Amino acid sequence: MALLICASDRDTSRLAARVAAMAPGVNVRNWPDIGQPEDIDFAVLWRQPPGLLPRLTGLKAVSSLGAGVEHLVNDPDLPEHLPLGRLAGPKLASDMAAYLVAQVLWHWKGLDRFAGQQSERRWQPWTPRHTPTIGLLGYGHLGQACARAFQALDLPVTAWTRSGQSIDDTVVHSGASGLATLAAQADYLICLLPLTDQTRGILNQRLFTTMKPDSVLISVGRGPHLIEADLAPALEQRRPALAILDVFDQEPLPADHPFWQHPQIRITPHCSAITRSDEAAELIVESYHRVRKGLPPLGLVKRERGY
Amino acid sequence: MALLICASDRDTSRLAARVAAMAPGVNVRNWPDIGQPEDIDFAVLWRQPPGLLPRLTGLKAVSSLGAGVEHLVNDPDLPEHLPLGRLAGPKLASDMAAYLVAQVLWHWKGLDRFAGQQSERRWQPWTPRHTPTIGLLGYGHLGQACARAFQALDLPVTAWTRSGQSIDDTVVHSGASGLATLAAQADYLICLLPLTDQTRGILNQRLFTTMKPDSVLISVGRGPHLIEADLAPALEQRRPALAILDVFDQEPLPADHPFWQHPQIRITPHCSAITRSDEAAELIVESYHRVRKGLPPLGLVKRERGY
Repeated sequence: MALLICASDRDTSRLAARVAAMAPGVNVRNWPDIGQPEDIDFAVLWRQPPGLLPRLTGLKAVSSLGAGVEHLVNDPDLPEHLPLGRLAGPKLASDMAAYLVAQVLWHWKGLDRFAGQQSERRWQPWTPRHTPTIGLLGYGHLGQACARAFQALDLPVTAWTRSGQSIDDTVVHSGASGLATLAAQADYLICLLPLTDQTRGILNQRLFTTMKPDSVLISVGRGPHLIEADLAPALEQRRPALAILDVFDQEPLPADHPFWQHPQIRITPHCSAITRSDEAAELIVESYHRVRKGLPPLGLVKRERGY
Repeated sequence: MALLICASDRDTSRLAARVAAMAPGVNVRNWPDIGQPEDIDFAVLWRQPPGLLPRLTGLKAVSSLGAGVEHLVNDPDLPEHLPLGRLAGPKLASDMAAYLVAQVLWHWKGLDRFAGQQSERRWQPWTPRHTPTIGLLGYGHLGQACARAFQALDLPVTAWTRSGQSIDDTVVHSGASGLATLAAQADYLICLLPLTDQTRGILNQRLFTTMKPDSVLISVGRGPHLIEADLAPALEQRRPALAILDVFDQEPLPADHPFWQHPQIRITPHCSAITRSDEAAELIVESYHRVRKGLPPLGLVKRERGY
């Protein structure tokens, strides 16, 4: 029995060492040193290399190394009934909430302007007049943490989800008309959705025309939520007036991409929230102990809905 | 019987009109049109002109127009036993929390750097490694609202107050040794204290030497909390490494003041939170109704402690 950690796009050796140190009895293998593949009963994967999954014939479950699972759900080599989990702990959620609260409040309180005024030795107070409404697309683990943070600041939050099911006191919309209702109210429209066939391209021209004039779009889920070609015309109509983008179709964003120089687009390089290795190690160990006991891994994904 | 609104440094005519509209039976007077001064039984004052208070012989109570009361407590013309209130509603507190959370999170998440990277079409992710500790000097109405906002983001908060009395789960220090303990722990040290004889000059060289290296000082209470001459030497020692200042000894900050050009000082022009006229009007009307019933005004000040 062995636990495999594999991410084709980053070095996971420190993470694997941390997991091994936390769980001394566990045989931890770090890709590409996978040893006998049939020993591996649990694999934690990120952008797994093609051809790896068919070799892991002893798998009892797999987990995404992050919160997103589209790289696994869409992998034809993933056995249909194999339990699939994901790593999404409270630190990831509070890191995401911190990014979103920072972006929203910095913009709302107009703090950008004061650096320029300072360099000109100019004293010109400014405060916002109205309290903004926050619209969250997606209201899972991350969305609920963000809502709590905004609500602690007395900022009203409305959400939109697939099911429309209410979780606490937050108003939750669903469906196409619910999306338009939310977009028309939100001063800050934030996409935190998982990437599925239903959410791919959801940030499109049709949605933008329903947005509140002079609102702000913040995209932190996955690049393909946004139809990139639809954004510049929408910005021209000021619906939204500003787009803050952390995720893109192609990452790193190519140097010749028009988004870089657009005055109404702010780019951060996919760093709103990343899985921290201390939290990841804890979640991996706990997940593996669960799998060994015959329980599903942490963050069990409903394969049919895609997240 | 009449209610007077007076601020010598701003136009309060719209506020007075709003109060009159909300309370049709009340005789509202807006300085300098005070009518018969002896009719006035309640006055809401901000930087009241010298000589005004002795003319108001019918006063049953006064209130500050804002959250600070030092302009009244230190006015020798204020009768000793006259009940003194202040206007500090939930919107003021959440506005202050929003400013502080924006400043802290923007700095912690390193968001400043990405504007420069974007102009150079450079993709260079960065995320913070450690969770910062927030140290609050002052834990009243504003401090508690700020603590709630930081705690909703899972950021630990420690406070320092005159009494050291614990209010909820937050650790509260007091006294000189408590101040040093707090300063040594805080990554962000935030001054929200009222200005009294005990707190004047509290942000001084002695405190700075106890601060955590590379920490950030945020001053949003009153200018005279800070010994301005002590700040530049402390910044050189990186205790603190950055000062975010919203209040100053002299406001507007004079154009020749050295703070403007200091690379480790960020200036905002006293706009972290200002009393909004809609909230002020509501609080004034409620306070006046209380005074007319023989109750103390809202936000009753303990004159002997100075806030």
